[in-house]
Amino acid sequence: MMKWLIGVDLGGTQLRVIRTDHRGKIHAQERVPTAAADGPTAVVEQIEALINAVTSAIDRAAITGVGVGAPGPVDPVAGVVLETPNLQGWRNVPLRALLEERITLPVTIGNDANAAALGEWLFGSGQGLHHFVYVTISTGIGGGVIMHDQLLLGRNGGANEIGHMTIQRDGPVCGCGNVGCWEALASGTALARAATLALNRGRDSLIPQLADAEPIKAQHVAAAARRADPLAQRLIAQAGELIGIGMVNLLHIYAPERIAVGGGMAKDWDLFAPHVRRIVVEDAMPPYRTTPIEPARLGGNVGVLGAAALVTQHTGLAAQRDRP
Amino acid sequence: MMKWLIGVDLGGTQLRVIRTDHRGKIHAQERVPTAAADGPTAVVEQIEALINAVTSAIDRAAITGVGVGAPGPVDPVAGVVLETPNLQGWRNVPLRALLEERITLPVTIGNDANAAALGEWLFGSGQGLHHFVYVTISTGIGGGVIMHDQLLLGRNGGANEIGHMTIQRDGPVCGCGNVGCWEALASGTALARAATLALNRGRDSLIPQLADAEPIKAQHVAAAARRADPLAQRLIAQAGELIGIGMVNLLHIYAPERIAVGGGMAKDWDLFAPHVRRIVVEDAMPPYRTTPIEPARLGGNVGVLGAAALVTQHTGLAAQRDRP
Repeated sequence: MMKWLIGVDLGGTQLRVIRTDHRGKIHAQERVPTAAADGPTAVVEQIEALINAVTSAIDRAAITGVGVGAPGPVDPVAGVVLETPNLQGWRNVPLRALLEERITLPVTIGNDANAAALGEWLFGSGQGLHHFVYVTISTGIGGGVIMHDQLLLGRNGGANEIGHMTIQRDGPVCGCGNVGCWEALASGTALARAATLALNRGRDSLIPQLADAEPIKAQHVAAAARRADPLAQRLIAQAGELIGIGMVNLLHIYAPERIAVGGGMAKDWDLFAPHVRRIVVEDAMPPYRTTPIEPARLGGNVGVLGAAALVTQHTGLAAQRDRP
Repeated sequence: MMKWLIGVDLGGTQLRVIRTDHRGKIHAQERVPTAAADGPTAVVEQIEALINAVTSAIDRAAITGVGVGAPGPVDPVAGVVLETPNLQGWRNVPLRALLEERITLPVTIGNDANAAALGEWLFGSGQGLHHFVYVTISTGIGGGVIMHDQLLLGRNGGANEIGHMTIQRDGPVCGCGNVGCWEALASGTALARAATLALNRGRDSLIPQLADAEPIKAQHVAAAARRADPLAQRLIAQAGELIGIGMVNLLHIYAPERIAVGGGMAKDWDLFAPHVRRIVVEDAMPPYRTTPIEPARLGGNVGVLGAAALVTQHTGLAAQRDRP
């Protein structure tokens, strides 16, 4: 009998639910705008309805479990969503218990960055590796880490806040309150800020034209760089170097076999990659220099497939729950 | 029957071998100056002789195994010492095979920082924890990490080069070639260098008197700070802050239940601790701020007890060795 995983990607704007097989092939999917303003119960009802929709054609006994990837900090052992910046009234929500009550299937909750890492490891660029780091670079920087074939969670699931490594101790203040975090220097937000600053000083560039009266984003800088805009090319080089400094840290800390990069910035990875590579070759110790740093492979499905992959963690998490 | 672990601490100047029970109580020990200039074979013979000495009174069948902690990079899966800065002619030495040939006991080789982490976790300040970080701060900064009750090794045992996180991207060049490493800024060597620099500029201080014509070391700065020397106190505060920045990174990266500090600087931890704590409270995200950061507990025995603790990793490493 075919066995199924259900993946639930709980985003601030969109809720996606899929049914996938154990190889990461999606057989059914549904999506709705998240009822973000209506509190947890409304969202739990949405999730239930979408799970029913993607499982209507199959025997529910063939479902291994349901994985939910949630934004913000999650306690995966307790199954509690601690906080979600984009969902109203979500604080210490026992999402696993709420869902298990309704759907009578084993539920595993995880942080979306950890879920994505697990998804890429099982179904994407990390397949077959023992040590694997997934980095997502978009408005912020997050990630997840597999070492010795295990997702690293740490105390209360708090590990791998890799965006909040200080890489410049006298650097800009980060949203987290710390100073000089990797995220504050090398995220898409930081790149957009650097571009805006340069343009406000009157630098000539294609960027404003490509942004077309919208606020400038990292993707506009990348688009301008593709048209050989000198300011954009310089900004991309700087961003690539800053990304590279954090990558050197990740190589020295985790010694992975591969680093995969997802998130909005990964779409333009070919632009950043040569600058990242230069920093890695200059600054990393010799055994770490050749580690591949490549775009993630699951693209827009990394959220839902990652959520589905969380199901594979269920047994381990249950064991931790039962420990003294 | 009592079961025994043998721990071998292979240092550049001293070779120590102990016999301990499985609770970390030492029942026999031997030490000799390491035959550092005579090549691997001479040292292997020394190790064999000391193991014979500490096991002469017991039945060898009661020995679980032998663990060897070696300085510098080690491939724990292959059992090979890749390089040791202080031992002549040691490059890619298959120490496990060389020893197993002579002593017919299972041998596990590990990097000394990883060994120390494991020793503190099993027998010292990390007892009973699932997630634990050990940091050694002396001439350099190193460490080892236990997560989910497992020593993190990474590809070829290269993980946890925590001294080589960049914390100041435009900082001083490190011995590893990178720029602004934690080790380059916050080690005992860095503190001694900062003191020497200040004194060369004519600052008045007790430090030179305490160093007594020897080159200034971190311990002299600490001793002067204990006598309320203003320059020394300021240097200690700066060093504590720099140590603290790296600690914030470790908290965000590993989310441990405790960080233990060993190495020469740990002897004066009471001086650094308030400055470290201040930075952690200011800069770490709220859930990480209360994590204890405390001196390690095994003191001078951390090397040998850590080496003995490596024996407990034997099964896991053998499994990795056998994997495709």
